[in-house]
Amino acid sequence: MLDYARRNTLADVQGLNTEQLDTQVMKRGNTIGTLLAHIAQVEETYQSVTFWGVKPSGIAAENILNNAGRKRFRGRELPHYLERLKTVRAETLAELQKRDDAWLHQEYAPWPNKVPMNNFFCWFHVLEDEINHGGQIRILRKEMGLSE
Amino acid sequence: MLDYARRNTLADVQGLNTEQLDTQVMKRGNTIGTLLAHIAQVEETYQSVTFWGVKPSGIAAENILNNAGRKRFRGRELPHYLERLKTVRAETLAELQKRDDAWLHQEYAPWPNKVPMNNFFCWFHVLEDEINHGGQIRILRKEMGLSE
Repeated sequence: MLDYARRNTLADVQGLNTEQLDTQVMKRGNTIGTLLAHIAQVEETYQSVTFWGVKPSGIAAENILNNAGRKRFRGRELPHYLERLKTVRAETLAELQKRDDAWLHQEYAPWPNKVPMNNFFCWFHVLEDEINHGGQIRILRKEMGLSE
Repeated sequence: MLDYARRNTLADVQGLNTEQLDTQVMKRGNTIGTLLAHIAQVEETYQSVTFWGVKPSGIAAENILNNAGRKRFRGRELPHYLERLKTVRAETLAELQKRDDAWLHQEYAPWPNKVPMNNFFCWFHVLEDEINHGGQIRILRKEMGLSE
């Protein structure tokens, strides 16, 4: 499922130039560039939580889906995003391969005052985040006239 | 996973009125109403394929993500969409409960000239479609000023 979602993400951004990655289509919306950066960021966060036992409260993941994020990522070319996605994903797959199905179903409660979750849910959530942004990238492309 | 995605979809559309459901935020884009109708339509299509062995070529699923679709659904209230989503989902869950994990991994090739798939993939794809549209509904809400 992670592979399939990634394949769709890559197909949707293939060939985009810096201007297209930086276009703010909707006045309150994010650019395709920041969405790609966010996909990698969420995956890294859940690597820390599920592989290394870091409490989410101990992860200083800056919110990049805002004006500051759009400014920070402006001017970058597609390979910048693709390289980061690839590096992060390679680590995910390497670490997942060391673990078994029992690990997927291990329960813990990393977020205070929330119901316990398991590692499967965490990785489902990473997947969900990518697919969610995938839907957004598609309508941004469409509005920019890049696809039907 | 199906339940979780649905919970997010319902949370994102709760309280929307007909005008909000019918607002075409982006000039080439769909309304939240047609996206909700499409979520139910995709689920029904895969019910036919996976539960009843209907070939996709035998399913006359009209494309509703276009001008005709937006016209067809205009003027409906939220309960219209929610009832349909609920009815379709109830059938999905009832039928899935009759089947086991071996069924999920059964392979077949319902689409001509494509690699075989299995029932798990079909239902993953239904889930993916809903999450994908969920991401779209979120940015449409944001652009309409309904959420941050």
